[in-house]
Amino acid sequence: MDFAPSARSAELTARVRTFMADEITPVEGEVHRDIARRRESGEDRWTPPPILSDLKARARAAGLWNLFLPKEHAGRYAADFGTDGGEGLTNIEYAPIAEAMGSSMLAPLVFNCNAPDTGNMEVLLRYGSEPQREQWLEPLLRGEIRSAFCMTEPDVASSDATNMAATAIPDGDDVIINGTKWFSTGVGNPECKILIFMGVTDATADRHARHTMVLVPIDTPGVTVDRMLTTMGYFDEPLGHGEVSFDDVRVPASNVLLGPGRAFEIAQGRLGPGRVHHCMRAIGLAERALELGVRRSLERTAFGRPLAKLGGNSERIADARIAINRSRLLVLHAAWLLDQGRAEGISAEAVSAVSEIKVEVPNMALDVIDLAIQLHGGAGLTDDFPLAASWVGARALRLADGPDEVHRGVVARIELGKYRG
Amino acid sequence: MDFAPSARSAELTARVRTFMADEITPVEGEVHRDIARRRESGEDRWTPPPILSDLKARARAAGLWNLFLPKEHAGRYAADFGTDGGEGLTNIEYAPIAEAMGSSMLAPLVFNCNAPDTGNMEVLLRYGSEPQREQWLEPLLRGEIRSAFCMTEPDVASSDATNMAATAIPDGDDVIINGTKWFSTGVGNPECKILIFMGVTDATADRHARHTMVLVPIDTPGVTVDRMLTTMGYFDEPLGHGEVSFDDVRVPASNVLLGPGRAFEIAQGRLGPGRVHHCMRAIGLAERALELGVRRSLERTAFGRPLAKLGGNSERIADARIAINRSRLLVLHAAWLLDQGRAEGISAEAVSAVSEIKVEVPNMALDVIDLAIQLHGGAGLTDDFPLAASWVGARALRLADGPDEVHRGVVARIELGKYRG
Amino acid sequence: MDFAPSARSAELTARVRTFMADEITPVEGEVHRDIARRRESGEDRWTPPPILSDLKARARAAGLWNLFLPKEHAGRYAADFGTDGGEGLTNIEYAPIAEAMGSSMLAPLVFNCNAPDTGNMEVLLRYGSEPQREQWLEPLLRGEIRSAFCMTEPDVASSDATNMAATAIPDGDDVIINGTKWFSTGVGNPECKILIFMGVTDATADRHARHTMVLVPIDTPGVTVDRMLTTMGYFDEPLGHGEVSFDDVRVPASNVLLGPGRAFEIAQGRLGPGRVHHCMRAIGLAERALELGVRRSLERTAFGRPLAKLGGNSERIADARIAINRSRLLVLHAAWLLDQGRAEGISAEAVSAVSEIKVEVPNMALDVIDLAIQLHGGAGLTDDFPLAASWVGARALRLADGPDEVHRGVVARIELGKYRG
Amino acid sequence: MDFAPSARSAELTARVRTFMADEITPVEGEVHRDIARRRESGEDRWTPPPILSDLKARARAAGLWNLFLPKEHAGRYAADFGTDGGEGLTNIEYAPIAEAMGSSMLAPLVFNCNAPDTGNMEVLLRYGSEPQREQWLEPLLRGEIRSAFCMTEPDVASSDATNMAATAIPDGDDVIINGTKWFSTGVGNPECKILIFMGVTDATADRHARHTMVLVPIDTPGVTVDRMLTTMGYFDEPLGHGEVSFDDVRVPASNVLLGPGRAFEIAQGRLGPGRVHHCMRAIGLAERALELGVRRSLERTAFGRPLAKLGGNSERIADARIAINRSRLLVLHAAWLLDQGRAEGISAEAVSAVSEIKVEVPNMALDVIDLAIQLHGGAGLTDDFPLAASWVGARALRLADGPDEVHRGVVARIELGKYRG
Repeated sequence: MDFAPSARSAELTARVRTFMADEITPVEGEVHRDIARRRESGEDRWTPPPILSDLKARARAAGLWNLFLPKEHAGRYAADFGTDGGEGLTNIEYAPIAEAMGSSMLAPLVFNCNAPDTGNMEVLLRYGSEPQREQWLEPLLRGEIRSAFCMTEPDVASSDATNMAATAIPDGDDVIINGTKWFSTGVGNPECKILIFMGVTDATADRHARHTMVLVPIDTPGVTVDRMLTTMGYFDEPLGHGEVSFDDVRVPASNVLLGPGRAFEIAQGRLGPGRVHHCMRAIGLAERALELGVRRSLERTAFGRPLAKLGGNSERIADARIAINRSRLLVLHAAWLLDQGRAEGISAEAVSAVSEIKVEVPNMALDVIDLAIQLHGGAGLTDDFPLAASWVGARALRLADGPDEVHRGVVARIELGKYRG
Repeated sequence: MDFAPSARSAELTARVRTFMADEITPVEGEVHRDIARRRESGEDRWTPPPILSDLKARARAAGLWNLFLPKEHAGRYAADFGTDGGEGLTNIEYAPIAEAMGSSMLAPLVFNCNAPDTGNMEVLLRYGSEPQREQWLEPLLRGEIRSAFCMTEPDVASSDATNMAATAIPDGDDVIINGTKWFSTGVGNPECKILIFMGVTDATADRHARHTMVLVPIDTPGVTVDRMLTTMGYFDEPLGHGEVSFDDVRVPASNVLLGPGRAFEIAQGRLGPGRVHHCMRAIGLAERALELGVRRSLERTAFGRPLAKLGGNSERIADARIAINRSRLLVLHAAWLLDQGRAEGISAEAVSAVSEIKVEVPNMALDVIDLAIQLHGGAGLTDDFPLAASWVGARALRLADGPDEVHRGVVARIELGKYRG
Repeated sequence: MDFAPSARSAELTARVRTFMADEITPVEGEVHRDIARRRESGEDRWTPPPILSDLKARARAAGLWNLFLPKEHAGRYAADFGTDGGEGLTNIEYAPIAEAMGSSMLAPLVFNCNAPDTGNMEVLLRYGSEPQREQWLEPLLRGEIRSAFCMTEPDVASSDATNMAATAIPDGDDVIINGTKWFSTGVGNPECKILIFMGVTDATADRHARHTMVLVPIDTPGVTVDRMLTTMGYFDEPLGHGEVSFDDVRVPASNVLLGPGRAFEIAQGRLGPGRVHHCMRAIGLAERALELGVRRSLERTAFGRPLAKLGGNSERIADARIAINRSRLLVLHAAWLLDQGRAEGISAEAVSAVSEIKVEVPNMALDVIDLAIQLHGGAGLTDDFPLAASWVGARALRLADGPDEVHRGVVARIELGKYRG
Repeated sequence: MDFAPSARSAELTARVRTFMADEITPVEGEVHRDIARRRESGEDRWTPPPILSDLKARARAAGLWNLFLPKEHAGRYAADFGTDGGEGLTNIEYAPIAEAMGSSMLAPLVFNCNAPDTGNMEVLLRYGSEPQREQWLEPLLRGEIRSAFCMTEPDVASSDATNMAATAIPDGDDVIINGTKWFSTGVGNPECKILIFMGVTDATADRHARHTMVLVPIDTPGVTVDRMLTTMGYFDEPLGHGEVSFDDVRVPASNVLLGPGRAFEIAQGRLGPGRVHHCMRAIGLAERALELGVRRSLERTAFGRPLAKLGGNSERIADARIAINRSRLLVLHAAWLLDQGRAEGISAEAVSAVSEIKVEVPNMALDVIDLAIQLHGGAGLTDDFPLAASWVGARALRLADGPDEVHRGVVARIELGKYRG
């Protein structure tokens, strides 16, 4: 057993951290204030600020680009798009990099490693046809366009994917799409050009063979972004979460991914590494929150002592340190299990591990960020610090990609299965 | 021991609930959407919507007006401004009414019972001179103007009030005011005309005799609302929380409340009932959240069963019911203790009780609302339901009027005091 | 609403507290050490120590005897057996007395108010025939004999009473009893003379009409106490929890309570007040634990400060105070609801309230006692303090009279029922 | 990063598990019942049952003996006493073995790997003189005698070691020892022959140079085991926890370990690996509890479904799985950090890690075991299952080797230190 990262992982993590400290952290406040100002004045605040394009160009030039590309699927893209040496990283190698990026809301965008684009690129990489890759994957990898994933629906409990009501019905050489999706992250951004839509094709098929994923260009007639949603009071510009209606949308059958009825197969493959990324980023968030909280507790004084010395504050800081450390190890272990499974498919242990982190990490992050907010007093609730927005991001993560309850169900099923006759 | 409310309390509670169901609930969504639309389009969204004035007029006509007026201080105002029969309510009588109002963000405004105006009116009632009352209390009681309370400061840990840096220095017949305050709730609203400012007058005086409260009309030269703050993305229009700077602001000495150096005396009197009101409203919030959560859990189905029947949901609903009930009783008991203390001053038991509810209730409400959010899935985070805004309101309450940690300190000090030699 | 106890309740509570301070507390340690010594040396430790008989006589002489007797059922026994003035107490009047007694493991025995005898006496009072009362209730009320309740079984999940396998089958003028029961509290004590047995009479009857309660003298042939059980190492002498087998035990049909198939009816009536008693006693336990913990935290010093001033200790003490206070109010409210229901039967609100306290209070007590143990260091785990035994008593209460999960189920069912179509 | 154990660690873990399944598990119940029977009948129950000697001989013959011996200190003893190949194991290699052993209360004794003997042997190994090793270490390694560690005192808060009142005063060629110690684990056992005593030598010296450790044969005049203590209701035979008084006990100065005033130095070296062992064993306990709980939840039925399917049980089982997994990784990481520090001393990160696991693991184990108890109903509190005793063992671990609060203090100090100027 060895807890030291590989040399390559350590080196890339260090370079990402340096880039962030030198290039991203100094402008972060400015970017957020600019968006806030635009929102206040009723201006467009969805177009990313120009500084973001500059940062992306610099990150790409520095070879800190598309680092999420998975070793086993990166193929020819690894060499072309960013990662040095011509191959992608394993999950366990990428994990500490994701943590580093996660400490900033801006960084994942800068490094072309933000959700949902990473997951969508991975889908195209693994399951896309050659023409699909050329048309959509390559500009995504170059950071020229953005994408969204249209799965969750407002009118059903989407924690049970079989509840899905939207449809993708073959019609000659086309597929006709109808329904309403929401929490489609990224559709606020004018750079968002392509949607991965999931809908029912054959409601009479086996439970996991009913659904199809289809590539839908956002400018296809019948596609409407009805509104942008808030989470708590945030719109999360410049990506945003949209409600999108599909009204007799017609795309060529060649836009289907993998084949009709194979959406669950794709979803399974997409979600493991994606959840590891989400969770490692959430650990980065929690680390940054703890740092801010500790600094504040040392700087501010009440009743003649720094906050850190008052009441239970130091014990809560200790608990936060423990919580972050144990969560990080759980995610790293899950990443490692996913890596082990490359050849023979994913083990039950890895499936459980991915659900375990999906429950553990967002809840841990919420507790740590909440502590940091409390240590900041009222300031912690404002946008003078990234804490409030971080908390909301972590809260959303308890629902995104399956709510806690569904993941606890997966873990329990596997645990009970060990002892069932 | 008798847990039945007085006939008068029961009757007023019932009338408030009926008024809310008939008049407020039907328009609530519209009001929020109108403010959201104005915010989106960059229009002024701080001027209250006209419907609010109508509702206020109707509430006043119905005798459901200024019900917060405390029996022991209401005096001549009780008969004039709303409460029938010519006297105010005790804390224990008002508590269930506050709970009823608290289930809606709009209702306290409609009934002229919203913070911080209630607290400010109570200060003027108890400590204001006759001219101060005429000038400010009466229009406040009529609902013609709004007020704010300027105490917390951005640059110090305001949980320790003695950290306060802003000053109120006598200068001949005037008082000169300097400093920066924030989380001054209500200053966004153009109807806000008067501020109660608290600052240091004599830093060398005894710890609790240094500070003075002064009435400062918001249009006094030198008063600037620098910016409106967000709490987790929300601006809480039409009241809002502002950062307000005071730059050599000069007001007549007759604007001082009670006398120089007597701010702590006023603050103590102001806070007990105010915290009971806050907490009862938070219980109303929690009850509404639980109702929404339970309804959703019965309506939505996953894996073939209503959410209410899945996993731990029903147990969590039971825990929420228990948590609300025990918190409510704790607040009612605190209200009763405050009522007992009217003659001989407030007992240590009552002081502890008020701090106990200030810790207990917001945390309870957060748990219950969070459960309701989780039961709603992503929808719970949007403004399609009042849950996200409610959660943020309850979160702010863990900091407003003293953070949890300060109140735990009060409770502990009194508990330890029982056994100290 | 009025939180002051009735004069009678206040006066009896004060007298019970005085009696305990004067007579019971001074000898408690000695009693426990005597039992421990007898256990160590292999002597009989089930016969109550003689001091207990003396204390009982004195309590009876002082009129502090059988105070649990419920107002609505006490009838002629109230005047004869202890409560002055000729009538029993309401639940809300008795509750503070139960709390007072609960702070000592010995006191309920001294005042003839210990479980399960109180519940058994109440059953006989409400449902016993005149001969049954004469034979068993009267010596119980005089404190001459003890009783046990034989319901839970080792071989089934007894949280679902319909799982019960033991049988009570009519045979001519007799009833024949078979099966094994355990956690029959009191059977270790040689003074235990009578068992209330519950078994299946007609497995084909309606779910709640299958079971019968029968009075079984412990010396009936076929009744064997197979062993005494430990709970976390404790035997709880001199009562103890036994496993009891019934092997073709034959008793006259006149020993049946109320009638064949009516056991559920009796169980329902027995459990409401019994749970209030249990919970109030547990609050007494928690109060005593908190007092011990606070005293210790003030007496012991580490790192130059009393424990009370270190880290989160004072905040935890504050949380314990809050937790006890809110739990007590919840129980008092439940007691009051039970009293309201005397005429027209028990309301759904009261049923929920009783289950709410059954979940809330033992868990609260465990937390508070655990804190007190921690403040005592290793000493808290020994029998030098009553904390370890108190913790185990409270832990058992999370299972006795229905586990938490069953009671949460009751609360949830009633809560969901409010919104079901 | 690699989470796979070394081949040697994996192989030894497997052999230990097999030995336990084949030899220990089958007789465990019998051993406990035998001790219980002896206790009930007043017989000596401190002499280990003969089966224990047999098992030890078999374990030793199987090469599963003294596996705790640390690689860097095992030296010549590694080859002689058990571990094959002539060298000890690293912490990370031994950790999974300790987990395996920890699932049984008996196993650590069988493998000569139980606390406090392992810690004491390690002290002798690292700090003992050659004659001290010959006289005490070698028979300990052979399992012929047992030892105890006398540090904690009943009259002071021993969480602050500088509170210690017992003394070890040089007097010519001797050292004279006075004072009272308690929670000296192992002194109940007649095989316990040697005590490591810690006391104050020079109260005026620097805070960490006042104390001395001395080897005191238990039969030295003036040493008295005053009584055996219970934890909850358990005596933990055949080791037990004793209160030991030292009354002018005189031993030769050559019995001093390392030198006068050097006790803290020794304590530091002793505790890191010891805490890793404790925590890994606690993880073994938790795993066994979860297995028992899950099995019970599948076997027992209520309301027509297995317990596993009722209410929140499956979610709680999932949470337990998550909690165990994350705790295990935290301990393994701490073990690895200790291994990294072998050359250059222990890093602050490792010091923090050891305190982190000392807080995390016992609390986690308590939660998991408590769940398992709840799933067993009343049976979980009896000694029909190892759960009650396991819970008590884990509870004691929140106090032994430093209470949670002290370890949180260590973690907080290191965390705050990162940001202090």
